[in-house]
Amino acid sequence: MTVRDMLEAHPRSTVLDRDLLLRCIEECIDCAATCTSCADADLAEPDVAEMVRCVRLCLDCADACQATGRILIRQTEPDLGVLRAEIEACAATCRACAEECEKHASNHEHCRICAEVCRRCERACEDLLATIRD
Amino acid sequence: MTVRDMLEAHPRSTVLDRDLLLRCIEECIDCAATCTSCADADLAEPDVAEMVRCVRLCLDCADACQATGRILIRQTEPDLGVLRAEIEACAATCRACAEECEKHASNHEHCRICAEVCRRCERACEDLLATIRD
Amino acid sequence: MTVRDMLEAHPRSTVLDRDLLLRCIEECIDCAATCTSCADADLAEPDVAEMVRCVRLCLDCADACQATGRILIRQTEPDLGVLRAEIEACAATCRACAEECEKHASNHEHCRICAEVCRRCERACEDLLATIRD
Amino acid sequence: MTVRDMLEAHPRSTVLDRDLLLRCIEECIDCAATCTSCADADLAEPDVAEMVRCVRLCLDCADACQATGRILIRQTEPDLGVLRAEIEACAATCRACAEECEKHASNHEHCRICAEVCRRCERACEDLLATIRD
Repeated sequence: MTVRDMLEAHPRSTVLDRDLLLRCIEECIDCAATCTSCADADLAEPDVAEMVRCVRLCLDCADACQATGRILIRQTEPDLGVLRAEIEACAATCRACAEECEKHASNHEHCRICAEVCRRCERACEDLLATIRD
Repeated sequence: MTVRDMLEAHPRSTVLDRDLLLRCIEECIDCAATCTSCADADLAEPDVAEMVRCVRLCLDCADACQATGRILIRQTEPDLGVLRAEIEACAATCRACAEECEKHASNHEHCRICAEVCRRCERACEDLLATIRD
Repeated sequence: MTVRDMLEAHPRSTVLDRDLLLRCIEECIDCAATCTSCADADLAEPDVAEMVRCVRLCLDCADACQATGRILIRQTEPDLGVLRAEIEACAATCRACAEECEKHASNHEHCRICAEVCRRCERACEDLLATIRD
Repeated sequence: MTVRDMLEAHPRSTVLDRDLLLRCIEECIDCAATCTSCADADLAEPDVAEMVRCVRLCLDCADACQATGRILIRQTEPDLGVLRAEIEACAATCRACAEECEKHASNHEHCRICAEVCRRCERACEDLLATIRD
């Protein structure tokens, strides 16, 4: 991904820890794509009726990660209160999605991968949050 | 908007207060569109250099409201922890955006309208939150 | 919705037909929300396995309408080639989604409503397109 | 990114050329993030008044690439007409954005990078389109 190069070329340097920020952005982007794919893969499973909660939480998580990824990419005139609230919400949504996907991890490889990616994103959010809590 | 009819046609009834939920969804949708428009109107102002923080917060608010609106529209297998976190983040983002737009309300009619819409969305989020806090 | 007031408060007037533009923006916003709801309602139906294609097309249509709505809301420095391509893609996606929802309209009221909203959005796109074809 | 693993774990194999599809998805995701960053970097430049068209096209391109990336990630019940229309619109939007960013490439490194990423995404769209034109 080109995010690192873009952050380096940005006229303003980030007010957050640069490495933790970059990791969190990349995990949000990866998690949004992975959850979009997992929701779709669930729909193609023969046991789709058992996967309904997984579809729903993956759709929510894709939306949350996408919004948070976009907000974290922006470096101009950041509002720390907004960043904190959005990262907290993203972590909570990743956690709920990971818990659901973990239940299906032994049956569906896409759920196993998705749970892992959600947990990575959750941790990246928590690690970044720890540096901006008031 | 057709959201009310869709909620009534949904096979599951909402676990939240129906009127507060509907108001919150409609405000999120309206706020996402209004903030997208305000960020764009800022760019066309002769004093664009003074509007940079407003553009940034309007873009963040549009992203947050859009994600929250989508998540609230979904009634199947809701996760209250996710809903709570997302609505809180949305309220915080609307508040920050409203505060910035209010500073420009006397100069720019689009900021005056946008601040009003952000405050309405913030209140709708707070009112809905009050019913689902643990 | 506040879109009309925001377009009137915008420092630049639109290069497109104002009424057709406003209608197209409002239909895109309504269709994005309706398709998000229809995909979710499908998941709660006992015959979810028969609704898989409907879920998928509603998710696509929600994404297409949301992107097109945001792009049409912007009035600053429009690129007609971009507008034309995005509106065409949106119309094609609404058409495909409407065709699928129409198949389930007699069984599921949410599909009947969704098909209607998709057809309205498709027509609004076609009517706006007719004014900007080269 | 985890997209490749997710496509391999999906119960349905893609109806499109797998390598071209994967490249197109990854370029859409990268381009959406890069354009979000470039629009934001423009806002922090001292010559922001000259960058207004660049901001606008980068915002449009981010929205178009994000929608197209999500739609292409989905493998369940694809509609070729929808895919074709969305990929065409995405290519047109990437092209317009690249042309604008190229004008600023010698002054702003973020525009130089963004133009490159847009051109890569445009080509990935065109290459994928060539395999699904009727």
